[in-house]
Amino acid sequence: MFENVELGHRLDKETYRQRSEAVRLQLLDLEYRLVQERAFATLILINGVDKAGKGETMNLLNSWLDPRHLDSHAIDRPSSEEEERPYMWRFWRRLPPRGRIGVFFDNWYAEIIEDRATGRSKRAAFEAALERVRRFEEMLVAEGVLLLKLWFHISAKELKRRLEKLSKDERTSWRVRESDWRYLEHYDDYAKTAAAAIRHTSTGVVPWVLVDGADDRYRAVFVGETLAGAWQRKFEAIERGEGGAPPLVLVPDLEERPNAVSALTLDQPMTKKAYERQLEHLQGRFDALVRDARFAKRSLVVLFEGMDAAGKGGAIRRVTAALDVRRYQVVPIAAPTDEELAQPYLWRFWRRMPGHGRVVIFDRSWYGRVLVERVEGLCAPADWMRAYAEINDFEEELIENGTVVVKFWLAIDLEEQLRRFRERESDPLKRHKITPEDWRNREKWPQYELAVSDMIERTSTEIAPWTLVEANNKYYARVKVLRTLCDRLEASL
Amino acid sequence: MFENVELGHRLDKETYRQRSEAVRLQLLDLEYRLVQERAFATLILINGVDKAGKGETMNLLNSWLDPRHLDSHAIDRPSSEEEERPYMWRFWRRLPPRGRIGVFFDNWYAEIIEDRATGRSKRAAFEAALERVRRFEEMLVAEGVLLLKLWFHISAKELKRRLEKLSKDERTSWRVRESDWRYLEHYDDYAKTAAAAIRHTSTGVVPWVLVDGADDRYRAVFVGETLAGAWQRKFEAIERGEGGAPPLVLVPDLEERPNAVSALTLDQPMTKKAYERQLEHLQGRFDALVRDARFAKRSLVVLFEGMDAAGKGGAIRRVTAALDVRRYQVVPIAAPTDEELAQPYLWRFWRRMPGHGRVVIFDRSWYGRVLVERVEGLCAPADWMRAYAEINDFEEELIENGTVVVKFWLAIDLEEQLRRFRERESDPLKRHKITPEDWRNREKWPQYELAVSDMIERTSTEIAPWTLVEANNKYYARVKVLRTLCDRLEASL
Repeated sequence: MFENVELGHRLDKETYRQRSEAVRLQLLDLEYRLVQERAFATLILINGVDKAGKGETMNLLNSWLDPRHLDSHAIDRPSSEEEERPYMWRFWRRLPPRGRIGVFFDNWYAEIIEDRATGRSKRAAFEAALERVRRFEEMLVAEGVLLLKLWFHISAKELKRRLEKLSKDERTSWRVRESDWRYLEHYDDYAKTAAAAIRHTSTGVVPWVLVDGADDRYRAVFVGETLAGAWQRKFEAIERGEGGAPPLVLVPDLEERPNAVSALTLDQPMTKKAYERQLEHLQGRFDALVRDARFAKRSLVVLFEGMDAAGKGGAIRRVTAALDVRRYQVVPIAAPTDEELAQPYLWRFWRRMPGHGRVVIFDRSWYGRVLVERVEGLCAPADWMRAYAEINDFEEELIENGTVVVKFWLAIDLEEQLRRFRERESDPLKRHKITPEDWRNREKWPQYELAVSDMIERTSTEIAPWTLVEANNKYYARVKVLRTLCDRLEASL
Repeated sequence: MFENVELGHRLDKETYRQRSEAVRLQLLDLEYRLVQERAFATLILINGVDKAGKGETMNLLNSWLDPRHLDSHAIDRPSSEEEERPYMWRFWRRLPPRGRIGVFFDNWYAEIIEDRATGRSKRAAFEAALERVRRFEEMLVAEGVLLLKLWFHISAKELKRRLEKLSKDERTSWRVRESDWRYLEHYDDYAKTAAAAIRHTSTGVVPWVLVDGADDRYRAVFVGETLAGAWQRKFEAIERGEGGAPPLVLVPDLEERPNAVSALTLDQPMTKKAYERQLEHLQGRFDALVRDARFAKRSLVVLFEGMDAAGKGGAIRRVTAALDVRRYQVVPIAAPTDEELAQPYLWRFWRRMPGHGRVVIFDRSWYGRVLVERVEGLCAPADWMRAYAEINDFEEELIENGTVVVKFWLAIDLEEQLRRFRERESDPLKRHKITPEDWRNREKWPQYELAVSDMIERTSTEIAPWTLVEANNKYYARVKVLRTLCDRLEASL
């Protein structure tokens, strides 16, 4: 989930100057229109890791926007009036009316996450609280509020660096409190709880936007462009007479923005000899795990996604080579059958779910909904936007049933793909594997890259993480796949 | 919640003959169209009290519809294949494809309710399970499935009568099992749990339809007309190019259908003398309760709804007469202010919520959304349909905070209203209380009656029930209001 926003995105001074100027002008125009037309209220939620730029963002919004139309609220200590009333009363009374902008700092999420991360609340109570929040937010959106939920994130390493730097300087040491160090100590608990909260409350209608908090300049431009984009789309929807529809909250399409996949070092060394040795060892280990008595009441679902020619088929063959043929099934996902088209899109995957002691391997998967169907426009944006939450719910059901779910993205670059395409064309045995469609898909590489980046961010959950595989070197990729499978299976038995 | 469906609705033979013939023809036409056009799948959930006609309804659908296009499933004992897979797999594999009809008997609700009613699951786990169901159902609807959720109900008395009758006859005694008597013994636990489950999963998009199970003929026509109406509206939506929108599931508008309000005996005897004596006593009791030390950390919200001239103002004055003026506030709800119009509709009520030891009395309330706004077309059907769930969530928040919520519907009939209107017109002191709008509203009495009936059914919850007050006799009404207030407040301290 946080893969993309732990990359430490930065903007240089000059880029920042240009982009921030542009976005500030745009924001002021849109804010003016909001105030004039009073067509809807804007509510911005600011949550996330402390020291990741939450306060700075509040200040930024106050300085970039005309602050007369904006109300910021940090409600850490309820008044006696508030304590006597239902929890949400403190927020209701501060809701921005149409034509105004409200910024809620930490808001209803902070306490729910704190209670769970520190073990004060049980899982069921945590989930029930999040569902109430989800219903409240969906009501706000149905009532026409533009709701923007921003989650600021930095890695534990970056947080530690910041706390140490602030502590060292006597002018800033007051900003570091005992609670900051405690947070750092339990960083993983908080991150896991936050990921669960984000998963449960990121819907097609009110998705979270994750913000990399590492760099002030990047963060400012990112937040500014996100808000401007959401406003822009909301006004466009109103112009089309679809003002009631929830606005599409999208992250700004920064071409230069690195993501978890593009940040990988795709060329990883591995010799054929090392590969063969390790492969054999791993296949033996995998076979033993699948035969293990503890697996007799479990099942395994593995899925492979990746650009064309990323090596999915080859990797799958190395996995199945380790298994008794009666134990596994490989399910290649191509165009759906008539029967499948007559059902909700997840049906074709549900029908393949393995029984106890079995392995099912998907060559492409339900993620087609947010990859090819999104990029090719085969379903409406609202449909693929809701699919992230539906897929997370689906995988949660599998996992609660004791199924181990392992998801691989095999990453190659454009050059490697070209090399493999040419190789296939010139090999009579492989010529059938390359079609005009593969060339067409290749032209849409940037769109796919954006879709993959969003997919990782929204579906690499604390219960079903994606494994990104550097796959320019097939040997390396296959070994990483098998090792991950062994590790994940072993850890869950 | 079950007020309407405990009335023992019946249809005589002749009415049944006419209506069932009409609806069967309609159903066959629509079914044929469904099969031909394959535009969507139909899924019917059959739940509720045993012996309330669930099985009979399955048989009915099989005999009224062309059974070649219908699949009925009663999944009480999972197969070994099903046990090895996630719980919902058993339902996914039986989902009807587009162009077909699936009927799921007891389905995912039976177990969740059973576990909670018998205390095997805690409240948070129960709610978390229901939320998962809610998300699953909303996904089905977003995928285009027409989902019809039917809840069959009979009162404990009627259930007992049926069990005894079946037991006495040796030809039918086999139909009564030990578990039926156990259910009867714990009827209230089950009813309360069922009401909570219905409240949590009745949304604007997938509302429950409650069915009075007392009479075979009535039940058959009711179910048939509900299904025909839903199909009809779904096809109309498709013709308008809005096939993706969730269909509006409405109960058939049976003019002769009595409801919880129309079934009341509105003329209740009470002399002025008896009234004055009881009033004084009750006012004293109410005052003492509000001054009670235990109320110092609680609060009370009372709301009055009723047709024009039902006596809301008079009843409110008798309530406030008992109270120290510093302790209460009366909030008359008329047209919203500009400030209120710029907010979600519940905001104007949230801002009035009382602090500890305080009483707020609403003269009309948030129920305007599903009464006047529905009847006058001031909001779209989708908006008032979602309001039931939003209002239930709102009241739940109040109650969890320790607020006591008491809701009164003051019921008068058309004649009594006319008498009071005339009286007001001829009294110089009351002349201002009657306006042309009151006469216009009076013409819409039947529409209001339907809206009130739906409101009671969907918002008289196990945590915040409606109190229906027979109000043709003002004395009786005021005494009942005060007594209810005292009883409810006393019970909750």
